[in-house]
Amino acid sequence: MGERHPTAQAMVELAIQALNEGGEAAVKVDAIVRKCQVSVTSLYHHFGSREGLIEAALIERYSRIVVTNVDDFVSGVKSSRDRTEMKSLLERFVPFLQGRANREVRFARAAAVGAAINRPALRETMGKVQDQQAQVLADALADGQRRGIVRSGVDALSLAYWLSGIVFGKILLEIASPSDDQESTYSELSVQAIESVVLPAIM
Amino acid sequence: MGERHPTAQAMVELAIQALNEGGEAAVKVDAIVRKCQVSVTSLYHHFGSREGLIEAALIERYSRIVVTNVDDFVSGVKSSRDRTEMKSLLERFVPFLQGRANREVRFARAAAVGAAINRPALRETMGKVQDQQAQVLADALADGQRRGIVRSGVDALSLAYWLSGIVFGKILLEIASPSDDQESTYSELSVQAIESVVLPAIM
Repeated sequence: MGERHPTAQAMVELAIQALNEGGEAAVKVDAIVRKCQVSVTSLYHHFGSREGLIEAALIERYSRIVVTNVDDFVSGVKSSRDRTEMKSLLERFVPFLQGRANREVRFARAAAVGAAINRPALRETMGKVQDQQAQVLADALADGQRRGIVRSGVDALSLAYWLSGIVFGKILLEIASPSDDQESTYSELSVQAIESVVLPAIM
Repeated sequence: MGERHPTAQAMVELAIQALNEGGEAAVKVDAIVRKCQVSVTSLYHHFGSREGLIEAALIERYSRIVVTNVDDFVSGVKSSRDRTEMKSLLERFVPFLQGRANREVRFARAAAVGAAINRPALRETMGKVQDQQAQVLADALADGQRRGIVRSGVDALSLAYWLSGIVFGKILLEIASPSDDQESTYSELSVQAIESVVLPAIM
C-alpha cells in the first residue's frame, strides 16, 4: 500500500469508521473533510473522488483485519512438528476462523469483494491483496509439504486460495441467521473436508 | 417474491440490465422511468426509493440465476441410484459449478451478499432466498441419505449450506485473475473435499 500523507491517512481512518457504522452510504465527504480540518479539494487531490476514498478504505479495512489471521495460522503451521500436531492445529483453527468471533473478517471481505465486482480498479487492487496473503499462506504450506505434514503433490498457492475460499464461504450461512447447531455442523464439515485435502495420507 | 405490477417488473428488468452493465452506480432513475414512460413518482410508489429498486433488482437477478443450478443438481441427486453414480455426479457437477461458465452466478451472488452486509432489509431478504434454495437442496440430500447415497448423521440443511459455501468461496480466487492450472486445481480440491463429506464411507 505504501505510505500515505497523514491527512490522507486520517481520511481513510474516518472512512473506515463510517463503513463499519453504515456501509458505503455512511461515507460523507463533508463530514470527513470537516473533521480533518481541510477543504474538499484536499480529498479530491488525494483520492480523485469520494469513490476513490471508499475504495481505499474498503481495501485497507479488509487487509488490516485479515493479516492477523494469516499470521496466526502461519505460525501454527511452522510450529507443528508432525501430522498429529498439524491435525490438531486444523481442529483448533478452522472452527475459530469460521466462528462468530471472526465474522467481522468475512463481513469486511464480503463488502470489499462485492464492491469490487463492478469496479475494475478496486478489483485489481483486491486481487493483489488476496495474492499477497495467499502467497504468505502458500509459503507456510509449501514448507509443511517439505516437512511431510501437509499433503504433497498439490500446488501450494492453489491450496492456500482453496483454504481461504472454504473459510469465506460460510458468509452464505451467516447472511441467513443460522442456529448454533448449524454453525457448529458447518465447522465440523469444514474441518473434515480440510483434513481430507491438507493432511498427508496415513502410511 | 410474489407478483409485481407490470410497470414495477419492467423497472426491475431495466435495473438488472444496468447492474449487469456497470453495477449499482449504473442504475439511473431518470433513464428507467423514461424508458417505462412513467413519472418518477411511480418508481417511488413501487419501491420507496432508488435504493429499494436496487435491492429488488439485486435479489431478483441473484435468485433467477442460481435456481437453475440448484434444480439441475437436485435432479442429478434424484436420478443417482448408488454411491458410484452419486460420486460421478459430484465429479461432473462440482467442476461445472466452480467453472468459468458459472462465474456469473458467483459474481451476482457476491454483489448481492456484499451489498447486504450493511443493509438490514436486503440482508433479511437475501437470507430468505438463501434459505429457500438451501432447503430445496437439503430435501434432495435428505432423500439421498435415506437411500444410502449421501452420508447419514449430518443435518441435511447444514450440509446444503456447506456445499453452497464451498462452491461460492471460489470467488476469492476469481477476483485475483487465476491461471487455468489454478482454476483446475481448485476444482479438484473441492471435488475431493466434497466427496469426503458427502459420500457414505465405503463398507
